[in-house]
Amino acid sequence: MYSYLAPLRDMRFVIEEVLQAGTDWQAMARFADLDYDTAAQVLEEAARFAGDVLAPLNAQGDREGCHWHDGQVSTPAGFADAYRAFVAAGWPSLACDPVHGGQGLPLLVKTAFDEMLSATNHAWMMYPGLLHGAYECLNAYGSDALKDRYLADLVSGRSLATMNLTEPQAGSDLSLIRTRAEPADDDTWLVSGNKVFISGGEHDWTDNILHLVLCRLPDAPAGSRGLSLVLAPKVLPDGRVNAIHCDGIEHKMGIKASATCAMRFERATAWLVGAPHRGLTALFVMMNAARLHVSLQGLGHLEMAQQNAQRYACERIQGRGQAIGRHAAVRRIIWTQRALCEGQRVLAYWTAHWLDQAQHHPLRDRREQAHQIVSVLTPVLKALLTDNGHRGADEALQVWGGYGYTRDCGIEQTVRDSRIAMIYEGTNEIQALDLIQRKVIEDSGSALRTVLAALEASLAAVRAVPHCHDLVRAYQQQRDALQRCIDEMPVRIQNDPGWSMRIADDFLRALGLTLLGWAWLRISEVSHGHEGDPWYDAKRASARFGMEWLLGEATWRWQRVMAPATALPELPPG
Amino acid sequence: MYSYLAPLRDMRFVIEEVLQAGTDWQAMARFADLDYDTAAQVLEEAARFAGDVLAPLNAQGDREGCHWHDGQVSTPAGFADAYRAFVAAGWPSLACDPVHGGQGLPLLVKTAFDEMLSATNHAWMMYPGLLHGAYECLNAYGSDALKDRYLADLVSGRSLATMNLTEPQAGSDLSLIRTRAEPADDDTWLVSGNKVFISGGEHDWTDNILHLVLCRLPDAPAGSRGLSLVLAPKVLPDGRVNAIHCDGIEHKMGIKASATCAMRFERATAWLVGAPHRGLTALFVMMNAARLHVSLQGLGHLEMAQQNAQRYACERIQGRGQAIGRHAAVRRIIWTQRALCEGQRVLAYWTAHWLDQAQHHPLRDRREQAHQIVSVLTPVLKALLTDNGHRGADEALQVWGGYGYTRDCGIEQTVRDSRIAMIYEGTNEIQALDLIQRKVIEDSGSALRTVLAALEASLAAVRAVPHCHDLVRAYQQQRDALQRCIDEMPVRIQNDPGWSMRIADDFLRALGLTLLGWAWLRISEVSHGHEGDPWYDAKRASARFGMEWLLGEATWRWQRVMAPATALPELPPG
Repeated sequence: MYSYLAPLRDMRFVIEEVLQAGTDWQAMARFADLDYDTAAQVLEEAARFAGDVLAPLNAQGDREGCHWHDGQVSTPAGFADAYRAFVAAGWPSLACDPVHGGQGLPLLVKTAFDEMLSATNHAWMMYPGLLHGAYECLNAYGSDALKDRYLADLVSGRSLATMNLTEPQAGSDLSLIRTRAEPADDDTWLVSGNKVFISGGEHDWTDNILHLVLCRLPDAPAGSRGLSLVLAPKVLPDGRVNAIHCDGIEHKMGIKASATCAMRFERATAWLVGAPHRGLTALFVMMNAARLHVSLQGLGHLEMAQQNAQRYACERIQGRGQAIGRHAAVRRIIWTQRALCEGQRVLAYWTAHWLDQAQHHPLRDRREQAHQIVSVLTPVLKALLTDNGHRGADEALQVWGGYGYTRDCGIEQTVRDSRIAMIYEGTNEIQALDLIQRKVIEDSGSALRTVLAALEASLAAVRAVPHCHDLVRAYQQQRDALQRCIDEMPVRIQNDPGWSMRIADDFLRALGLTLLGWAWLRISEVSHGHEGDPWYDAKRASARFGMEWLLGEATWRWQRVMAPATALPELPPG
Repeated sequence: MYSYLAPLRDMRFVIEEVLQAGTDWQAMARFADLDYDTAAQVLEEAARFAGDVLAPLNAQGDREGCHWHDGQVSTPAGFADAYRAFVAAGWPSLACDPVHGGQGLPLLVKTAFDEMLSATNHAWMMYPGLLHGAYECLNAYGSDALKDRYLADLVSGRSLATMNLTEPQAGSDLSLIRTRAEPADDDTWLVSGNKVFISGGEHDWTDNILHLVLCRLPDAPAGSRGLSLVLAPKVLPDGRVNAIHCDGIEHKMGIKASATCAMRFERATAWLVGAPHRGLTALFVMMNAARLHVSLQGLGHLEMAQQNAQRYACERIQGRGQAIGRHAAVRRIIWTQRALCEGQRVLAYWTAHWLDQAQHHPLRDRREQAHQIVSVLTPVLKALLTDNGHRGADEALQVWGGYGYTRDCGIEQTVRDSRIAMIYEGTNEIQALDLIQRKVIEDSGSALRTVLAALEASLAAVRAVPHCHDLVRAYQQQRDALQRCIDEMPVRIQNDPGWSMRIADDFLRALGLTLLGWAWLRISEVSHGHEGDPWYDAKRASARFGMEWLLGEATWRWQRVMAPATALPELPPG
């Protein structure tokens, strides 16, 4: 029976023992009163919502899917009710500012929350998934009038929100956007154009939907620097329905219960968010959090796959009365996913904790340090965790054999659902380019050096643990390769102009594995002193497995990154 | 538009230029009259059947699926008609013995044929996929009476055939099979039991279906050595319907148009095939050919994915009017799949050519050499080509971005369909164990040395090509690692009893990549002398890409294989 047990102890382990977040919370006014038990209670409550309400809807939502009829979208049975329960429990306000009625909890706590909800029902989570980002965007860039009108609806979840970027001719390249907004008589704009792949563009959950729409004003300069952001609500303040139409929904490989809409704006009334032509600046406020959110989908899927594979492997008997989990091949698959889950959880939560510090830490240096670290970690996490989420689930399917290929088993839905996370919010190839070009080269490696320094600072203790010495060496080997890469980068870029584009994906993966090496080291260190306690023994075992089995891939990746001049010719004609 | 252009020129290139199969054909009486043009004409005709008849049914079959009602199975519209056209054209008899009305063509030609049909419509191909194997099995082990009764039906395709191995409690471990056969009064047996995952167990294509059923006789010894094979037809010779029931079909991730049936035999009349308790021996006659067939599904899927990704990448314009195929990330994905396709085609066809020689070569030494080579190559191909088929298609999906995730695009079906090939006919983990334990260790590496010698023999020429020197070195590095592994194996096995189980998957993958290195070298060599011809230039480019970008993974895998003592502990309790 495919099911989910929220890894609450693992989450507390990362928050309290690995990151020791409480120390930093005390330094930040917003979180000074928060203690571990309160945070844990919130997560326990969230685990109940995820397990009792969302999990039972997941397979059924996949079979039923969404239906479009004459501009209206109906979602699977129970989905809208689950959202009403979500709103009634106050979940949308979790990490919002208390000034606006929010609970003011750290993004770190919301991160664990998002992981659970994405794991149990990715498709359902797509609808409220943009709520917090829209709140942050409006809070940072909306006019006072706009905030007065809509902010409370986002905090309470009374309205849901969408992000309208993609157009048929403009996917990864937003400079090709054609949607236009013309000034109306008052302070409003009239927006016209077609958007595709809009998650939750239309549904039967809330009366109003707030569409954030990337578009061009009449005097806009060409390219992506000339884009503006407007807010166009489904229902106008006077109760009239706005000129926004849903022309259809996509039939997709997965997340079938998430309505992916084709939207048509026909001189729809809208308000500007942020300055004219500075729409991307306003959007980027949402971007780090949104990409972190997507990486948690990858983590959630892998946790789901791994838990269920392990349980099945221990229950399924084949040959001489032994469970298949005794077979080396099965063990290898399951330890691989366990090690990845546990290391990745450290990296994701660490990033969320830096995001909290970037926003709320009283020391400017710390905020600056946090900004730098988050800027580097975000694309790495988005690509690494979604790649591993999908590929890991796909590998885990193998544990079930033929049964895994059937719909009744459950794992194949995880494989299908998880695939989208490698594509949206910027494909993983776009993340790799963002990392090497914007975050490393344009920055002359300075933010990356800040990351390295933060890793080093937290490793002093592990060097004192005798049975970790070989693990420290294994990590240092990768860290040294990274250091060499940074040092040689200026010369490489000069001598080999295609280098950074060519090795972008390998660089991201190698850096991601190196970071995982650090996470496994930290897990080993923190679990030291608990020898004989089976829970900590398992933590040490999976960290060691990660170091011995998985880290070696980085060596191969660094070799590809530093190879003299690998050929990557133009494609031959079709 | 997702479509398929049969790679006929690539197929001829491998058969005629890389393998130079014609020389060996002349030495075998069965093929002495066959020339390249005749073989090519057969393949052109097959390409028309695949493209005109099967390809248009593929997406529709996925949407419609199969339906079960009261023991009857209906297949998607057009599927049964396509089979009637297939039979009318005589395709089932392609590689059957002319003595039985077959066309007597080499398995090498059938291999290219299977690649095309699997690429265009994997689900459809599942039904006739076992036809040739059943023919070979019956031909080798059936009594004269049984052959007289059924062989002609298999050659003509008038009846289809199934393989009934798996039971609910017996998947990878056949020793757990419970289906029993009791002697009846005459020469028949009465077989009773439940089988699951039976492809084509019931359908609306042919009047009769011949079920080959693995079962136990009353006096059978325990374990897999005590299994017997019987043939139980759906319709008995006197026209009565046999006591065989289809209790339902699976709802699957992919190949939805293939009916995967739960079968119930209730004292069904059957005839023994082969000696009592020697059922596996009779089945193994089908096994090498069946596993090669599955590997061609992987190759076909990758060819399909790669062709379409490349065409889309050249057509889709984004940013400054450039096709997305100009982007390094897209080029990397597409060259990867091209290099894999082209190298794997050499390996698969090479294996088929050895299969032909194992059966038909007049020299006993050559037949023995061929048997050895096929025994090693078969598990490698099955696992390598199906892993790469699915993972490569999954990677190719990325080229389409969000569009690739929609049903309309086509690639997501290839991703779903290709997943099953990693599981059936022995999971890829079973292949890895078969390779390292049965084909290498139990054989003391002798067959593997025969493979290495065959590789070396064909490399003399490439060493003389100046611009291939670096490629030769890259290949030799992997070959040397393989040699070291063979040399150290006896000591490793003695000192580290868990070693072979632990490294089985890495060993298979490393060996597979090393073989690919050889294939790319051969392609480079054969394309030498055609510089300036764009077709050969592209062949050389993808071979070089494979050597420079993909072969390095083998270094990492060999390191894992030879690592001192990597920990792979028991799983912790759920």
